[in-house]
Amino acid sequence: MSVNRSTSALVEVPRGLAGVVVTDTEVGDVRGLEGFYHYRQYSAVELAKTRPFEDVWHLLVHGELPDAERSAAFAAETAALRRLPDQVWAALPAIAAGSGGSGPLAGLRTALSLLGAAQGFKPVYDIGTEARRRDTLVAAGAVPTLLTALHRLGAGLDPVEPREDLSYAANYLYMLTGAEPDPRRTRAVEQYLISTIDHGFNASTFTARVIASTGADVAACLVGAVGALSGPLHGGAPSRALDTLDAIGTPDRIDPWIRERVLAGDRIMGFGHPVYRTEDPRSRMLREIAQGFGGPRVAFAVEVERRVEAILAELKPGRELHTNVEFYAGVVMELCGLPREMFTPTFAAARVVGWSANILEQAQDSKIIRPVARYVGPGAPVRVPTAA
Amino acid sequence: MSVNRSTSALVEVPRGLAGVVVTDTEVGDVRGLEGFYHYRQYSAVELAKTRPFEDVWHLLVHGELPDAERSAAFAAETAALRRLPDQVWAALPAIAAGSGGSGPLAGLRTALSLLGAAQGFKPVYDIGTEARRRDTLVAAGAVPTLLTALHRLGAGLDPVEPREDLSYAANYLYMLTGAEPDPRRTRAVEQYLISTIDHGFNASTFTARVIASTGADVAACLVGAVGALSGPLHGGAPSRALDTLDAIGTPDRIDPWIRERVLAGDRIMGFGHPVYRTEDPRSRMLREIAQGFGGPRVAFAVEVERRVEAILAELKPGRELHTNVEFYAGVVMELCGLPREMFTPTFAAARVVGWSANILEQAQDSKIIRPVARYVGPGAPVRVPTAA
Repeated sequence: MSVNRSTSALVEVPRGLAGVVVTDTEVGDVRGLEGFYHYRQYSAVELAKTRPFEDVWHLLVHGELPDAERSAAFAAETAALRRLPDQVWAALPAIAAGSGGSGPLAGLRTALSLLGAAQGFKPVYDIGTEARRRDTLVAAGAVPTLLTALHRLGAGLDPVEPREDLSYAANYLYMLTGAEPDPRRTRAVEQYLISTIDHGFNASTFTARVIASTGADVAACLVGAVGALSGPLHGGAPSRALDTLDAIGTPDRIDPWIRERVLAGDRIMGFGHPVYRTEDPRSRMLREIAQGFGGPRVAFAVEVERRVEAILAELKPGRELHTNVEFYAGVVMELCGLPREMFTPTFAAARVVGWSANILEQAQDSKIIRPVARYVGPGAPVRVPTAA
Repeated sequence: MSVNRSTSALVEVPRGLAGVVVTDTEVGDVRGLEGFYHYRQYSAVELAKTRPFEDVWHLLVHGELPDAERSAAFAAETAALRRLPDQVWAALPAIAAGSGGSGPLAGLRTALSLLGAAQGFKPVYDIGTEARRRDTLVAAGAVPTLLTALHRLGAGLDPVEPREDLSYAANYLYMLTGAEPDPRRTRAVEQYLISTIDHGFNASTFTARVIASTGADVAACLVGAVGALSGPLHGGAPSRALDTLDAIGTPDRIDPWIRERVLAGDRIMGFGHPVYRTEDPRSRMLREIAQGFGGPRVAFAVEVERRVEAILAELKPGRELHTNVEFYAGVVMELCGLPREMFTPTFAAARVVGWSANILEQAQDSKIIRPVARYVGPGAPVRVPTAA
């Protein structure tokens, strides 16, 4: 990748840097044609089916799956990071009060920024590998506490303090609701979280790496990533797929509703992915989880999926369009009792681990990511007119 | 720029995206070989010499210099934005208390994030051009208030509320010190601020545009940019050049100090720029401003500059190395009474206007900036070992 070239020679590339190789990575890969993605060469779906969240977190930031002893030690280390520093905990009501207007990720953005400063995070280029990794653990470990406390404060409820004796996923649900979650829902959310940790070089991951390439601290990188995730073209919204189900309403309305959308050329939320040409492997896993719960909502979602594919095959033959991760993620999170406004924040509670691994990898490089823009405005410089 | 190409074809580019053209821009340009840079085809230095900060701000975000009437209206509009919403003002003590560990930009990062949410900023793709521009004004208008209040709170002082009857620069100095600044110092800081608004496609500007390309709100973009600016490889530190002057100490020590550094191959802070091959035009302007103040400190700085260039010509003939913007920016800010820890934040109080113009330009595009990474880890996917 390291073509050496003078910065004075301009390099033309596709719009939006599509297909442009910015860096090498060992974090993971998405193979769109195969419908497969992995974290450090382990199938992400298989990890979700067989491991706890903390083990996969360890894989991402330490580079390998832990053995039993290290698994327990890592779980204990990260559980101890759930409790916030006093001044951050004390500032959350003010942040929650000020963050209603721009959605829950705006509150996370603020709180995570404050947390990093309160913990004295230093520029990644000024500290060693261990200190950097520790900063990513401190930040990611706090994210569920920040998210759930801000959510409860926004709803007029007292925040629930974290518990160290629960798993990452169980503690997240516990802090959200104030009640200990049942194991089945906990495991469903945990599998969703694992499957969402990383997924190629998306815009938030890229943002985190650009900021890391300046040597900024871990919080600066994560806060930028949260900002990018809040963009409608990136973070999307697993709740939109539920909006589709709600809009259709009843099974008898499925066909006319879908035909109208397809013939109008409208996008159907929850369907289609820019990379996968096959079924999204996350979608397949989440459908199985949903079907394990069963019930009319799940049956309705499966029927909508089946009819969308059938009607597309009829009206737009040759166009492969499958459910994306949003569709069944929304169904699963609803089954597990998560309110819709927490769907994207829950995504962030997983993706923060992927961002962490990418920041750590970027920090081992020492080259700033600094492309150029081409000036295309009016030609010859104009003298400044004298002020009126 | 818009080479259409399938995203499945990988495009190899220089490391760090050096020289890679990400976008077209009409905001401005840096011509390194000529020692010239401009904002929307007006020489930035000439703008600094002839216009108030608010006029140049108008040029950046509205696309043209204002006439007398619009100049007054824009100054009044932005002055009214200096006062913070109550809940943001009330949260500043908690942010200041929590932000000591990571430097003043970390406090700005948090406060700006909160401000955007408190003002209900919406995704840039969900609102019109006027609303987007207004959000950039609201954010940039508040930056001096946020910075000075956080600085004073951190020093155990009460924050000073903004005044609408002062210029942007005068009000900044007033809020910092609590006293009305003299016109000469105000104008010197104002010229520094104008000259620092924009400067090519640096890493913070690029970060702001990547986040904007997801459609995220203006605060998300600016907070990411502040994070990138805080990186040692980007924001630098105008105070480092003063550290060089302090380290040398007295005129008789200039020659041995410099010779030792040059022969050891050490970098001399305040000298050298990745783009300019001639004198940095900002440096020239700031030297003139400093010399207008006069005094032993300025004479010493000028002598250090003269000797560095002479010794380099002798020891490393053919190597062009001039003072960069940091060198005389530090001298001027010191002359104007700014404490060193406020040098980089003051830079941010200007650059926020350049970021604003870039966010507004990016928001008119609808293509997400999403490059790729190449997986180079272990080859064939490995089955997940059963948990221990």
